Amino acid sequence: MRYYQVGEEGASRLVLETDGDVYDLTAANSSVEAFGDLARAASIADTDIDEIASRLTDSAPTLSAETATDSLQTPVHADEVWAAGVTYHISEKARQEESTKPEMYLDVYEADRPEVFLKATPNRLVGPDDAVGIRNDSEWDVPEPELGVVLYKGDIVGYTVGNDMSSRSIEGENPLYLPQAKVYDRCCSIGPCVRSASSLDDPHDLEMWMTIQRDGETMYEDTTSTGEMVRTVHELVDCYTDHNAVPDLSVLLTGTALVPDEGFTLRDDDVVDIGIEDIGRLSNDVTTV
Amino acid sequence: MRYYQVGEEGASRLVLETDGDVYDLTAANSSVEAFGDLARAASIADTDIDEIASRLTDSAPTLSAETATDSLQTPVHADEVWAAGVTYHISEKARQEESTKPEMYLDVYEADRPEVFLKATPNRLVGPDDAVGIRNDSEWDVPEPELGVVLYKGDIVGYTVGNDMSSRSIEGENPLYLPQAKVYDRCCSIGPCVRSASSLDDPHDLEMWMTIQRDGETMYEDTTSTGEMVRTVHELVDCYTDHNAVPDLSVLLTGTALVPDEGFTLRDDDVVDIGIEDIGRLSNDVTTV
Amino acid sequence: MRYYQVGEEGASRLVLETDGDVYDLTAANSSVEAFGDLARAASIADTDIDEIASRLTDSAPTLSAETATDSLQTPVHADEVWAAGVTYHISEKARQEESTKPEMYLDVYEADRPEVFLKATPNRLVGPDDAVGIRNDSEWDVPEPELGVVLYKGDIVGYTVGNDMSSRSIEGENPLYLPQAKVYDRCCSIGPCVRSASSLDDPHDLEMWMTIQRDGETMYEDTTSTGEMVRTVHELVDCYTDHNAVPDLSVLLTGTALVPDEGFTLRDDDVVDIGIEDIGRLSNDVTTV
Amino acid sequence: MRYYQVGEEGASRLVLETDGDVYDLTAANSSVEAFGDLARAASIADTDIDEIASRLTDSAPTLSAETATDSLQTPVHADEVWAAGVTYHISEKARQEESTKPEMYLDVYEADRPEVFLKATPNRLVGPDDAVGIRNDSEWDVPEPELGVVLYKGDIVGYTVGNDMSSRSIEGENPLYLPQAKVYDRCCSIGPCVRSASSLDDPHDLEMWMTIQRDGETMYEDTTSTGEMVRTVHELVDCYTDHNAVPDLSVLLTGTALVPDEGFTLRDDDVVDIGIEDIGRLSNDVTTV
Repeated sequence: MRYYQVGEEGASRLVLETDGDVYDLTAANSSVEAFGDLARAASIADTDIDEIASRLTDSAPTLSAETATDSLQTPVHADEVWAAGVTYHISEKARQEESTKPEMYLDVYEADRPEVFLKATPNRLVGPDDAVGIRNDSEWDVPEPELGVVLYKGDIVGYTVGNDMSSRSIEGENPLYLPQAKVYDRCCSIGPCVRSASSLDDPHDLEMWMTIQRDGETMYEDTTSTGEMVRTVHELVDCYTDHNAVPDLSVLLTGTALVPDEGFTLRDDDVVDIGIEDIGRLSNDVTTV
Repeated sequence: MRYYQVGEEGASRLVLETDGDVYDLTAANSSVEAFGDLARAASIADTDIDEIASRLTDSAPTLSAETATDSLQTPVHADEVWAAGVTYHISEKARQEESTKPEMYLDVYEADRPEVFLKATPNRLVGPDDAVGIRNDSEWDVPEPELGVVLYKGDIVGYTVGNDMSSRSIEGENPLYLPQAKVYDRCCSIGPCVRSASSLDDPHDLEMWMTIQRDGETMYEDTTSTGEMVRTVHELVDCYTDHNAVPDLSVLLTGTALVPDEGFTLRDDDVVDIGIEDIGRLSNDVTTV
Repeated sequence: MRYYQVGEEGASRLVLETDGDVYDLTAANSSVEAFGDLARAASIADTDIDEIASRLTDSAPTLSAETATDSLQTPVHADEVWAAGVTYHISEKARQEESTKPEMYLDVYEADRPEVFLKATPNRLVGPDDAVGIRNDSEWDVPEPELGVVLYKGDIVGYTVGNDMSSRSIEGENPLYLPQAKVYDRCCSIGPCVRSASSLDDPHDLEMWMTIQRDGETMYEDTTSTGEMVRTVHELVDCYTDHNAVPDLSVLLTGTALVPDEGFTLRDDDVVDIGIEDIGRLSNDVTTV
Repeated sequence: MRYYQVGEEGASRLVLETDGDVYDLTAANSSVEAFGDLARAASIADTDIDEIASRLTDSAPTLSAETATDSLQTPVHADEVWAAGVTYHISEKARQEESTKPEMYLDVYEADRPEVFLKATPNRLVGPDDAVGIRNDSEWDVPEPELGVVLYKGDIVGYTVGNDMSSRSIEGENPLYLPQAKVYDRCCSIGPCVRSASSLDDPHDLEMWMTIQRDGETMYEDTTSTGEMVRTVHELVDCYTDHNAVPDLSVLLTGTALVPDEGFTLRDDDVVDIGIEDIGRLSNDVTTV
């Protein structure tokens, strides 16, 4: 089951899409204003989010299919977003090519400890169809398409699509600049929906693709699979939540394997589309910040 | 003028200390519950925080001097804390010794761009006399005593003392682990007060010291001066606020020059005291998280 | 099952008492901070509050019985309290005696429409063992012990005990002064707990008693039964919720039959105890406001 | 100076109108989101609201005059609204006619203690151009046009226009029903602006008028003056704030002298316009609740 936050500010509602039918859960029960309300109720009542939602569909008005694509907002009001890096398979060939690059990436690839970092606070996070940012003091900027894990009090409750915007030029200058390359205004987007964990067979076997459009022309297009991940989702979640203060709602992005060529950098008004099988497509345009 | 947040939860108040006199500002005006209330009022009324506070002392009850040392809470409810690294003078000799260490630190030292990073969210921040954390999966843990800049909407309004707790073993393993070495449960403390910017002559000429006590024994003791900084406070603030979404209240820690010897690591129940001239002394014990 | 809010500000928790056992529900699930969290989860998950709580007892630490009597806070964070008047049986004899009093009370008694009124906002409501207020400009002040209905979004979810403090002198001077006689600082208290609606057989068959102590001496003591009510709880709830904007959590007090003699008025430091069978005892001292 | 809250939900701003010029105060300082922010800052900085606003106009963008009439919201986020009754001069002739009515109104008129009552909580309050409510179980419904006093922590900081909607049939049936006649869904509106207290010469000498339109036809039209009040604004404010818990922001409506004829009752889609000299015009249509 997929959960969307739709509508204008002040009249926002949680919408469920299942088997092509779209239900207004907020209309069914005014206590259900956001995905976090379902997650909290499921935790307290020790039941499943989808089971609660199924029961709500009995009294929920149905909406047109377009409702789940228009006026989309961030599908979960995450208190923070973390992200992981160097989590996808690197071929022997690429490893040799990488030998000209900093060794630390290969070290992380082979180490027990994954790379995770605090990626975004709510004021730096944008929703679907809103603009992600490129820093004005950066020359080389790319999106990073990633599977996002949605957590309630540290437990996996769903999945979403994430865009972990990155300044390659700043990151490349010095690894100590990584936080500046990663954490800035409009540096992250998640959406279009939350796919419930209990309705997703295997997060490690999902097709993931990204396209970048400029003035109607496709500048980048490629596909991978979350099956190429060399870490499990649980391993990354543990790395984030161990020894940490974890808020009620958070999202952990799990790294990427889709990277535009070295010659490519994002520009204002480019459109980045990221799709993950069984979850959905997250679309954002680009603006300088 | 120095501002302290004191008292128990539910009966917390903002207290002003000036020339040895201590005033209960919350008693003088119930709208003044925290330093942020003064900062916001000063911004809106286009006046100075100290000028507002001076006027409040006319009707503020005076308190005993101990009030400004007991039941201390985080002196400013910062929405986030950022920190800077490699900001203090490194001697030629040390630079040569450092040559066995990763080059990136010397690179930052000489580069135009400082190193700044997102250090703590409110749920990871502890107040004076509360316990700072060392990660259970880290073997080498140290405090970093730093001058903290207090910002209202990105403008400097005061100064405080900060402890930027760090896992040297995790950071040392791989620079990509820096966020894990820096951002975790109880990873930061600020206090004991906010010294107003307008009452502090020169933030670049303050003595700073740190001691570490274990079972009553002094394990570490050293002194430096913020005059040893090779970046200005304004330069670091600009680096944090440029291209960034900056919240109402934030603190930027400005790096350290006081570092225990390589052989030293913090243990449970150690007590870390950090003092900065004209601001105050921040004391925290240590606990494993 | 009975729900208590206990503990100090900042460390408050929801506690369940059932069959003499006391459970810390907040310790079992940190999302359960107050009775409203259970009510909301039960509404969303379409299940029963007690069923959720029963499940939580599996992992909830047990506490000593005293926990449910010490450090009591308002058991439900009601957004507002309404109250009803003239809801109890008036004997033929009393009716004749009342004939010297304003006819309007007898009119309400016989009318279809009950008397309900907005009694208290959260800032005027005090918890168990806290002081209720008597107005300094009133000469004749009495408590009114009442069965309180706890509502979530207008639906009955529990019962509590309420004290609807009243200035008889101000009310008696002119019926248009009724709001001043009823709505003022510290004018209302509820507690000690919320008894779940599903665990209470019949709200219309509960013994209710009140005592007033002064300097250790019993000034008033009497008993009645909610069976003496001439309106049903549902009728009163409908009168409150119809045509009205009803908040998430509210309490409706259902009127009283226990009234001290005309010669009696409350004084500072009097202690008012109100008990209702199967719910509990609400105790408050008295202070002038 | 007049303060308006304008714009859509999520992009609401405080706007100042003075001498025909309209300024966007929120654009000048993002800490100024609502009138309450100015009131709080003025209280803390011990200065005047208008003085703060004047300074903000230096950097505030100007807007077209229409901005202060379109997309109006409630001009002050009052935590509660109280109202007063029987505050205007009653002629000897009317008093004799009134003799057929309940004596209590004349008693209040002559008594030291005014009639004040809790009129509305925020969820029952509507803004300018929004619909006020008439109860579906009431046959005789009228608006009551009133001068509203805006209070910050009980101190007078401004004036507005209020509509104290009333069910005459329910009130007339029994004085104990007054709260039901007065407190219900959409029972109150205030607006269009807050006129600062320091810029209003004399609140007791303002022309006040009301019109009621139905299908384009004027059903009612009359004029009075606040000079006809027999209580002072301060007297009424004291009666509200004495012995009471007063929130940060509140509005006290001061009673009316403009009452439609007995034969008139409001219907759905009627439009009520209330104007007070030097403040502005509050317009609301009517809906059944």
